[in-house]
Formats: sequence, C-alpha cells, structure tokens
Amino acid sequence: MKPKLKTKLTCPMCGSKYHDPVQRCSCGEPVEFETLKGEPYIGKTVWERFWDFWPVEPELELSLGEGDTPLVKSKLGKELGVRLYLKNETVNPTWSFKDRGTFLAVSYALKAGYKAVGTVSTGNMAASVAAYATRAGLETKILVSESASDEKLKAVSVYGADVIRVRGDYGKLYFESLKLGEKLGIYFINSDNPFRVEGYKSIAFEIAEEITPDYILIPTSSGGLFRGIAKGFIELKESGLIDELPTLTAVQAEGCSPICRAFSEGKERIKRFENPKTVAKAIANPYPPSGNAVLKLLREFGWKCITVSDEEILKAQRELAGEGLFVQPASATGIAALRRLVESGEIDEGAKVVSILTGSGLKTLSHVEGGKIRECPLESLEECLG
Amino acid sequence: MKPKLKTKLTCPMCGSKYHDPVQRCSCGEPVEFETLKGEPYIGKTVWERFWDFWPVEPELELSLGEGDTPLVKSKLGKELGVRLYLKNETVNPTWSFKDRGTFLAVSYALKAGYKAVGTVSTGNMAASVAAYATRAGLETKILVSESASDEKLKAVSVYGADVIRVRGDYGKLYFESLKLGEKLGIYFINSDNPFRVEGYKSIAFEIAEEITPDYILIPTSSGGLFRGIAKGFIELKESGLIDELPTLTAVQAEGCSPICRAFSEGKERIKRFENPKTVAKAIANPYPPSGNAVLKLLREFGWKCITVSDEEILKAQRELAGEGLFVQPASATGIAALRRLVESGEIDEGAKVVSILTGSGLKTLSHVEGGKIRECPLESLEECLG
Repeated sequence: MKPKLKTKLTCPMCGSKYHDPVQRCSCGEPVEFETLKGEPYIGKTVWERFWDFWPVEPELELSLGEGDTPLVKSKLGKELGVRLYLKNETVNPTWSFKDRGTFLAVSYALKAGYKAVGTVSTGNMAASVAAYATRAGLETKILVSESASDEKLKAVSVYGADVIRVRGDYGKLYFESLKLGEKLGIYFINSDNPFRVEGYKSIAFEIAEEITPDYILIPTSSGGLFRGIAKGFIELKESGLIDELPTLTAVQAEGCSPICRAFSEGKERIKRFENPKTVAKAIANPYPPSGNAVLKLLREFGWKCITVSDEEILKAQRELAGEGLFVQPASATGIAALRRLVESGEIDEGAKVVSILTGSGLKTLSHVEGGKIRECPLESLEECLG
Repeated sequence: MKPKLKTKLTCPMCGSKYHDPVQRCSCGEPVEFETLKGEPYIGKTVWERFWDFWPVEPELELSLGEGDTPLVKSKLGKELGVRLYLKNETVNPTWSFKDRGTFLAVSYALKAGYKAVGTVSTGNMAASVAAYATRAGLETKILVSESASDEKLKAVSVYGADVIRVRGDYGKLYFESLKLGEKLGIYFINSDNPFRVEGYKSIAFEIAEEITPDYILIPTSSGGLFRGIAKGFIELKESGLIDELPTLTAVQAEGCSPICRAFSEGKERIKRFENPKTVAKAIANPYPPSGNAVLKLLREFGWKCITVSDEEILKAQRELAGEGLFVQPASATGIAALRRLVESGEIDEGAKVVSILTGSGLKTLSHVEGGKIRECPLESLEECLG
C-alpha cells in the first residue's frame, strides 16, 4: 500500500521528520518533502524534464497535459518600465494552476492504492480534483460550503464527482476532512497537500527554463501555490541550476489579507481575518492553512507581501483582457501589485518580472461587467461600422 | 500596404487564381492558398517548427501561446476497440481552436497595415478575434445576431471589442461584412478566411509529429476547420513527410447537417438546412460558407461525413467528462460519431483515431445539467462520506 517516496517529510516550522506520508505535523503545521536535487533532462513534458525532482513517480498515463503553459510577454511591462512576463495558467486542462498539484497528488493516491480521493473547495481545486480522480477511476468526494451556488458547482459535478454541501464551520472542514479521510481511506487533496505543493514546483522550473526572473508575483490564498513556487526555485538553486533566487511576492486582496497583515505587524503567526470581503473570491481564505509557513519563507528570504484593493484588481483584470488574456479577479492581483511596487520604487526599472495568471475568467463570468453592445439594422451596417 | 505572401490564392472549385489577398472567388466560393511545401525545423512552437508552411510570416510577438495542445490518450478507445487520442483544443488562449486561425489572420492584418479587424460570430470565434485584435492594438468590430444573449457576449466584450448586434438576415451578414470591410478598411476574419484555414493546418502538423493517425474526427460547421486540417495533411504528404493521408471524417449534428445531407444525396452543392436545431450550437451553421469546398474534398479523397443525434452528443459529452475533459457539446460530436463508426464496422479494430475537442465546456456552462448535490451537517460528515 505504501509507494516508494524519494525523500522524507519534514515540518518547516518545528523540524519534525516523518517517514510516513502524513499531511500535517503534530504541531499543526503543514509538512513538506525534504529538498530534492537533480538535473534536467530532455523531455516533452515538465514532469519528464525534471524527473529527479518529484517525490513520487508521476503517472504519465493519468496526465491531461497540465503544465508547460505559455510565458507571454506583456506590453504592460513597457508602460511600467519593467520586463513583464505572464505565466498563463488558465490554459491548463481544467483552466487553473491547480491541475499541476492535483496530477501529482492523484499519482500518489493511485500508487498508494486509494479507491477514493476528496477535497474541500468550491472553485478551481474542486473541478481539478474531480477531473483527475474520475480519469483515474477513483471515487471523488468534493466537500463544499453551504453558500456555494448550484451554478458554481455545475463545473464540478459535470465530472461525475460526489458533491456534498456541508453545513457548519467551513474552516473546521479542512482539518475534519483530513482526519476522516485517514479513517475512511479517502485521500484528501486539500489546498496545501504535500504532493500538491510539489506539483506547483513545476511552475518555477518552467519559468527558469525560459528566463532568469528578478520578481515573481503570486496571488496567495492558502499558501500552497506560494510554497510550491518557492520550493521549486530553492531546489534549482541547491542543484546549482540557477545562481540567485528571485524575489517572491505574495499578493493578497485588501479585504482578505491574513498573511500580509501578520507580516507587516511583525507577527510570527497569522490570525483569522474576520469578515473577509473581496471580488477575488479564489484567494479569499481568511485562515490559510499554510499561512505560517509562507510567513516564515517571507522572513527567511527577505521576500514581500503586498495587498491590493478590489478597484485595483478589477482595473488589472481589464488591462490583462486588453492583452488578450481574460482571467479571474484573483489572477489579476499580481498586475495590480506590480503597479504599486513600481510606483513606490520597490521594483527597479528594467527588472524581469513574472506574474502568475492562476485561472480562467470564464470561471467567474457571471460577475463580469459586460461591455456596451450596440444595436444596428443590417441596412445601416455601413454607418454602424464607419 | 501589401505584405509579401509566399504563394498565390486559388479557388478550389473553379480554379481561378488571385495574386491579391481576396477572401472569396468571383464564383462565390472560398479561395485558398496554393499548396505550400517544406520541411520541419527544431522549435518551441508549431509556428517555428513548420515555418515553411505559412503563407505569411507569423507575428510571434502577437502570439498568446496558441497551439501545441496536448494529444491525450483516451480510455474510451479501449472500450471501443480502437486507439483513441483526443486533441484538446480547449486549452488554447481563449479556450477554443479558433485561436490558431485568428493568430495567423491577425498577423496578416498587422502586416497589411489594417487599423481594424472584425468577425461575424457569437461564440468562440468572436472571443478569439476580440482577444488577438486588442492585443495587436487594432480596433475590433464583432457582428453578432439579434438573438445573441447579453450573457454570451460578456466573454467577448470583456476584451474591449466593439460588439454590434445586427438586426436582419444573419446568413447575409457574412458576405455583407466582407464587402463593407473591403470598402471601409476593416479586415474581416470570418469562419473560413484563407489565413484562418492556414492556421488550422497546425493541428494536422502537431498530430503528425506524435502519431500516424488512420482517422480524424472533425466537428464541422462552416467547414473552415475541416479544410485547414485537410490542407495540413495534404501538404505534409506532398512534402514527403507522411506516406498516407488519414481518413478525415466531417461530423455534424443531425439537427443541422447541410454538408452530410448533400454528401449522402450525391449532390455537388449544399442547400440551406431549414430550421436547424441542435444542442451543438457551435456547429449549427445552416449554410456553411465552405460547405461546397468540404463536399469536394470528401468526394476527392473518399472521406466520410456522419451525423449524430443530440442524445448521442450529450452522452459523449458525459463520457469525455469521465476522462477529465469537459467540452462544449459540439466538441463531443467526434466521440458520438466514433461509436457509430465502430458499431457499423466502418472503422477497423485497432485503428488509430484522433477526435478534435474544439472548445471548453465552460463556454456553455449554463446549458449543462448539473449533477446531484448532497447536503450534510458537519457533525454527520463521517456517515455522509462512508
């Protein structure tokens, strides 16, 4: 039942080691795999090219072609005086970055002999886990909050998952699902599952294959994505494949910024963010399970945490659409942050900056304000076009 | 104003030649570029690898990373006794295959000095043209039918396009837009624009890089996609890069199948399909502008045209979701057709079949029947999961 793992798990907070594939440390914090080192190979997919760096062997038959997304040169960069690149994660198989982590975590679940997997999510992650689990022939339990709309859940239930709307404290559900999952033999792939975090390293690897970035802007909710990209760059450096780490910047919405708040207040631990309210729903986790771990990384490496307003987010969303990239509000936070960082002089002119576009705008279409639509009779088309 | 083109345009129906970049022949049929030949190169993108094969130089700065989509091995193939591969076009920048054609056509419009482009579409193509045109800094005129819902147009207007709802015969609009476009200096990139068709060749090239397919299943509406994939394989063969052409199969919905009807009746020309009605809206063109050209290809090469019912389409859509791929109904028609072709013995056991998944299911989410959602209090979660 236990597949061979390349390395031990460790708690980045208290240092405890685990040989068993636990999900969280007994101290309450998330565990992570010890640093993997290696060298790149020739290969079509990022999984093959960075084969040495995965704690479990990727199940290539399960792959839907996640990852290997385009790094798009942005024109906004010129206006802002930096060299800006957009990592377009909206073109993953379920149209968000979550697929990278899901792929690796479901690979593990299959090898470990699980018959069912699950997740706690109403959005991108739910769709992603449902898609890969059904592909793998596993039963899927998707736990969603009471407030999740039927409309939103359509894009999840369509994959054939068992969707369960849970009445009660949504924050508790994260921990409860892990506990019950262990008891019932359901492998819960939540936001900062250790394999999920490993999957996100692939974003760092792909960026490093194309450029040597100075800054990476990362929309940050649970902290899983931030931790994954950080670990990816750290492993590249420890493997001697890059010389310097880029400056990673966690971006949160002003209306839900537990990590940035704790960071600016010099606290070591995050506190629950009461009454979260932002248009960037996909990053509105008021008590991120990897919040403390992200905080530690920010301090250790001298990285940044920055908040942006809903107004700035919506403006950035329109600016990205003007480059042909329609993203969900959460995905536009990086660009909103960049404008602030440039204006305050925190990012130098000419710096190479990557902003992660986490998920497709189609996912939040009902919240988008449509543009003006003109009416025109066919007979008058010439005037209407003129 | 006139960019250098590698080859002349020709009418596949009457044989007339054009040195100017016209869109249609004086006989009324679509024109196409004469066969291009070449050899493949090493390169990251399909545009670079098949550089010899584009009539106009692709504007790589304009690219959003369209193309180079995954060819996913399907488990349905096993059940049906064939080797089935799914070409997942839902992971293009605006989440449909249209981006390949749009990229090349906008590349041309830029080189030709146009200040504005347009298209006639309410769906995938409208979003695609809007995205690339705004990226290129061109004005965009999107002409839609009276019946297009505001909801549907959101995903288009978000890019900042000028969306015009035209009252009148939608069929006439295609030709009217080309005429007025020429007069007003707006380059209209409609469904079978010659550069658009050239862009779709990239699908054939990518498939041929990975496998030597026996059959390609192509959801067919205007006929532009079919013609592009056909031209791609023909050019590979004429360049000595493949030995045999695969059998191309045009797939239409029973409720709107002008090409298949004319084909099975032995007619040389299609007739308008009255009262079209199908769930596969994206392929519901009752009078496809490339219908006659497709008909000619089907005859010339002994290819196939097959219709499928709405019921079969919706079943295939669910089957694809069961593999982790959520597509719009039109994109599921290939799988519906495959089942028929296998059952009738028209496709041999063990044949290598590729089905083109043209666009994302998120685009037609409001039409999807959601699965069942269970309710559960947190205290009872163990029973609910058990």
